[in-house]
Amino acid sequence: MRFDVVTLFPDFFTSPLSSGLIGKALAKIIAEVHFVNPRDFATDKHRRVDDEPYGGGVGMLMKPEPIFAAVESLPVLPRRDVILMTPQGQPLNQQLLVELASSYDQIVLICGHYEGVDERVLNLVTREVSLGDFVLTAGEIPALTLINGVMRLLPGTVAKEESLKLESFEAGLLDYPQYTRPAEFRGQKVPDVLLSGNHREIERWRREQQIERTRSRRPDLYANWLKQSDSKIE
Amino acid sequence: MRFDVVTLFPDFFTSPLSSGLIGKALAKIIAEVHFVNPRDFATDKHRRVDDEPYGGGVGMLMKPEPIFAAVESLPVLPRRDVILMTPQGQPLNQQLLVELASSYDQIVLICGHYEGVDERVLNLVTREVSLGDFVLTAGEIPALTLINGVMRLLPGTVAKEESLKLESFEAGLLDYPQYTRPAEFRGQKVPDVLLSGNHREIERWRREQQIERTRSRRPDLYANWLKQSDSKIE
Repeated sequence: MRFDVVTLFPDFFTSPLSSGLIGKALAKIIAEVHFVNPRDFATDKHRRVDDEPYGGGVGMLMKPEPIFAAVESLPVLPRRDVILMTPQGQPLNQQLLVELASSYDQIVLICGHYEGVDERVLNLVTREVSLGDFVLTAGEIPALTLINGVMRLLPGTVAKEESLKLESFEAGLLDYPQYTRPAEFRGQKVPDVLLSGNHREIERWRREQQIERTRSRRPDLYANWLKQSDSKIE
Repeated sequence: MRFDVVTLFPDFFTSPLSSGLIGKALAKIIAEVHFVNPRDFATDKHRRVDDEPYGGGVGMLMKPEPIFAAVESLPVLPRRDVILMTPQGQPLNQQLLVELASSYDQIVLICGHYEGVDERVLNLVTREVSLGDFVLTAGEIPALTLINGVMRLLPGTVAKEESLKLESFEAGLLDYPQYTRPAEFRGQKVPDVLLSGNHREIERWRREQQIERTRSRRPDLYANWLKQSDSKIE
């Protein structure tokens, strides 16, 4: 997988991409991350990449030309997706990460800045993706999130491939509570069932916890899960 | 505002926190970010911070003792929140960022790793927060996101305070399309209304665009917005 990040702040990514599992995966060349800075494609003498919005309003917008020139300077691999990270996009979820990890060889990520980007930049992109219903100073964190979530799904990033399978959201439910040693810590004991050695009981307990937790904490996810379960039974 | 980040990878944060508006805000001491590493509080000779889950399963869990010791080593400010970043938490949204920015002097963020953390760590926290319905390798990116979103709301981070006000999600709607120079780019023109100078018409167009965009892209947000608008009229 090749990622190309279109960003005014390529230095932002230095330490997150050299840390932890992602740092190791990049060292093993499971994926490559390249950067291109629109400022290098600004043509005026001040290298301006932003300007005032037509129609008035506070804040500055990213101009279209430097972004077009930056994206057009990139190599084009056959299975390629171009994504603008913006709060106006489709919310990022696990299904989208799985689709991106399995369907593409190259993902171009455009990071917005200032108050936003000129609407005509949408002509460059195949989709807009949002990290969630909140506002950040810029698109670098959303891009980093997408890179992490996709890379985690690539073979070789997570040592035991099994540990990807049973996780939250892939089954449409939240995860069950987990415990490790000591069996008692500050008066709090690990639930007996987990110490029982009875694997069928443990599995049942975990499943019940997943369902109950999802029902109480995330009625939205729970409703979707019920719908899916129903349609499987029919 | 003081942030304390409990993390096995403090180096992860170096470049994101020295970049862009957040780097400038930290230089102005609008907020402070401190780090504490649970590994420094592991008591065995191998400094182990993880162990196998009770009841079986793949992957490793973060042990409770080093996290408790790390959190208990921190100073305690009067208005303090302690948050575990986990996919099982309440989804992060703008309302939560506003609450955190306005109600606390200290936010302690615990970053999970490996397959998760021992459930008893919940006794340390006032809430669990999720970045969204997807899985990342670790909690550092969610913590970074929360720090960015909260810092952006602190006075002095964003130069013009007005530019915070009218943005997406604070009104429950997506943002309207924005354009800057040139007026025509590769055959695509800026909508006439934005060049008209008629501020009432521009405001009306923008409002219509916000409503239509939210309706077509995010029926979930649109439904909430309609409900709120109705209750205001009644």
